[in-house]
Amino acid sequence: MAKSSGASIFPSRRVRRTPFYEGVTAAGMSVCTVYNRMILPSVFEGEVYDYHHLKKHVQVWDVSCERQVAVQGPDARRLMDMLSPRDLDRMADDQCYYMPAIDRDGGLLNDPVLVKLAEDHFWISLADSDYLQYVLGIRDALGLDVRVWEPDVSPLAVQGPKSDDLMARVFGDAARDIRFFRYKKLAFEGQEFVVARSGYSKQGGFEIYVEGTENGMPLWDALFAAGEDLEVRAGCPSTRERVEGGLLSYGNDMDRSNTPYEIGLGKFVNSPRDYIGKAGLASRSEPERQIRAVEIAGDELTPIAGIWPLLADGRKVGQVTSAGWSPDFNTTVSIAMVDRSHWDAGTRLEVETTDGMRPATVHEKFWI
Amino acid sequence: MAKSSGASIFPSRRVRRTPFYEGVTAAGMSVCTVYNRMILPSVFEGEVYDYHHLKKHVQVWDVSCERQVAVQGPDARRLMDMLSPRDLDRMADDQCYYMPAIDRDGGLLNDPVLVKLAEDHFWISLADSDYLQYVLGIRDALGLDVRVWEPDVSPLAVQGPKSDDLMARVFGDAARDIRFFRYKKLAFEGQEFVVARSGYSKQGGFEIYVEGTENGMPLWDALFAAGEDLEVRAGCPSTRERVEGGLLSYGNDMDRSNTPYEIGLGKFVNSPRDYIGKAGLASRSEPERQIRAVEIAGDELTPIAGIWPLLADGRKVGQVTSAGWSPDFNTTVSIAMVDRSHWDAGTRLEVETTDGMRPATVHEKFWI
Repeated sequence: MAKSSGASIFPSRRVRRTPFYEGVTAAGMSVCTVYNRMILPSVFEGEVYDYHHLKKHVQVWDVSCERQVAVQGPDARRLMDMLSPRDLDRMADDQCYYMPAIDRDGGLLNDPVLVKLAEDHFWISLADSDYLQYVLGIRDALGLDVRVWEPDVSPLAVQGPKSDDLMARVFGDAARDIRFFRYKKLAFEGQEFVVARSGYSKQGGFEIYVEGTENGMPLWDALFAAGEDLEVRAGCPSTRERVEGGLLSYGNDMDRSNTPYEIGLGKFVNSPRDYIGKAGLASRSEPERQIRAVEIAGDELTPIAGIWPLLADGRKVGQVTSAGWSPDFNTTVSIAMVDRSHWDAGTRLEVETTDGMRPATVHEKFWI
Repeated sequence: MAKSSGASIFPSRRVRRTPFYEGVTAAGMSVCTVYNRMILPSVFEGEVYDYHHLKKHVQVWDVSCERQVAVQGPDARRLMDMLSPRDLDRMADDQCYYMPAIDRDGGLLNDPVLVKLAEDHFWISLADSDYLQYVLGIRDALGLDVRVWEPDVSPLAVQGPKSDDLMARVFGDAARDIRFFRYKKLAFEGQEFVVARSGYSKQGGFEIYVEGTENGMPLWDALFAAGEDLEVRAGCPSTRERVEGGLLSYGNDMDRSNTPYEIGLGKFVNSPRDYIGKAGLASRSEPERQIRAVEIAGDELTPIAGIWPLLADGRKVGQVTSAGWSPDFNTTVSIAMVDRSHWDAGTRLEVETTDGMRPATVHEKFWI
C-alpha cells in the first residue's frame, strides 16, 4: 500500500492551496500531504522516478507550506533573543540561521530557519506547527511592542545539481555567488525576492521566498521556460533522499518530547542570553537517546506511517520514524531515535516493521 | 470536481492516524481531510447519502482531531482566567463551555470548547490550530506553575436522532439525562469517559472523550454491535448539514483577522477579569462585518475550496467561505462574512463562484 488510505482530500478553504497550485496540478501531482494547513506535493511521476531525477537534473518545488512568522518592531530583537537558544549576535546580516524552537523545558516546538531582514525585522520559516502562536503568547504575556503575523510569502525551492544554471538564467549570475545558508535579494520582473542557498535536499539548490501570491505563477512559468533543456521538472521533498541525507522532519522524527541535543543539534545551543528554556536545556545536555541512521535489511517494505519499534533482545531501545527504500544504496535507509545503550555504530538490532521483524544496524553516519 | 486535487495523502507519522483508524477504513472512508495534523474522514458512502442518513438514523464519527490541551496545576485557573473572554465563575462543574480563544487584539486563534475536570484541571477541546502553543507561550513568559500538554484523548461523536437510544445501550440510561453542553463521567468496560451532549451537527448527539488509544476500537466495535437495528453507520461532519445549521469552521469561516463579535459570539465576551485581549476587544465590539447565512441561486455548484467574493454593484462587500448543495432545502446554502452595509436580511447580492456569477440573498437566519 503506497497510500495512507486511498482517500483523497476534501476541498475546503482551511486546507489551503498555494500560489503555485495551478502549476503543481498541471505538472501531475499524484500524491500530496497537508503541512501547516497547506497542500504540499509528495509525488509527481513516481517516488523512484522523482528521486533519480532530483539527483541528476533540477526540480522546482512548491514548498509554500514553509510558512513565515514575521516579527517586526521595536521589540523584535528582544523577542527573538528570548526565543533563540542560538546566539544571534553571531548572525550575519545575510544569514539563514537554523534555530531550535523550544519551550521552557527545552522541548522542541518547531524546527525553523530564521531569516534576518533588518535589525528589527525577522522571518521564522516554519516546519509543521503553529509556532506563530507560541511567539504571540510570549508577546501578549509580556506586552512587547512588536507585530507578529503570517505574511503572504511562499517559498519556492529549486533543487538538484543543475540548480545554479537554472537560477542564473532567471535571476542572473549573482545567484551563483550566494553562499550556503546565506541569501541575496534578487529581482524577477522588477520584484525583489529573498533568494537563499538552502533547501530540504542534499542535492544543492535554492529557496526563493516569493512575496505576493500574484507573483507565484509568473515565476513558476519562467523557471520552466528557462529550464527546458536542463530537463527541469516539478518535484517535492523526497523521503528516501532526505533520509539518505539525514534531514529531519518535525512531527516525524521529533516533537515536543525531544530536545535539540537528542536530534544532534546541541551545537546550536550557544546563546549567552537568558532565553526561555535555558535552564530547562541545561539539565538535558547529556541525552539518553539520540537520532541515528539505521539500515534495515531485506527487500522494500510497506511505507512507514507511524513508528516502528527498535528492539534488542525483545526490549524496546528506540524507534524508527522515517524510512524508505534507497535505489542508490540498495537497502532501506531510516532515521531512528535510539537509546544511549544501543546507539553505537554497528549495533545490531531488530525492527518491528509493518511487514514483520527485520534485522537492523546502527550506521556510523547518514548515507550522503 | 468533487476532490481537491485527485491526489491522495502520503503516508507519514506526522499526519497522524487515530485510535479508530482501523474502523473508519473498514467502513469505507473515501474522502478525508487533515485537521490538527490528524486524519479526519470527510465522506463515506457519498456526501448526499451520508447527509440523509445523519438526519434519519445515528452515526459514529471519528473526531479524534479535536485534540485536547490539558491544563493542570496550581496556576491552572489563573491561566484560564487570562485566556478566557468568557466568565468562568459562571461555569458549572459539569459544563462544556464555548470559549473564544483570542490574542491581545481580540483576533481569533481557535474556536474551542472548554471542559472543566476539576478546579485545577481543564481540557481545551480544539478546532484546527495549535492553540497549545499560545497557552505554552503565556505560561512560559510568566513562569506559571502549571502543566500544559496534549493528552491521549480522542473524541468519538455519536450524532443523529437515534443517538440517545444507541448511547443508552452502551453507557446505560444515564446518558439520556445529560443536558446540552453538559457532561457526565460514564463507564464502558470499567473505563470512565467524559461523555458530553454536544457535537458538530444539528441532529443531536454526544461526544465521548476517549482516554487511551487502546480503548478506541473496543468502544467503536461496541457501538456498531449495539446499533445494528438502529442502522448505525460510520459518519463524519457534513458540510451541507453544518452550513444549514450555521455551525462555523475555524480556518474556513474565520481566522485571526476576525473577532468573536464578527462571528456572532459577542455574548460570550463577558469576563469581569483582566484577560488578554480585553482592551483589544473593547474597541472592536461594533463590528463592521459579520457572519450571515447566504442563499445562492441556481443548480449545484463545484465545491468551494477558497473564498467566493460577494459583490454589490460590482464592489466587494463580503465573501462566502463555506457552501454546499442542500438536498432538503433544494438550494445552495452558504456561510459568508458580510459588510454591515449589506448584511440585512433580504439583501440581494452577486457571488463569484468557481462556476461564474450567481445571484445570492442574505437570509434572516440559518436554515435549521
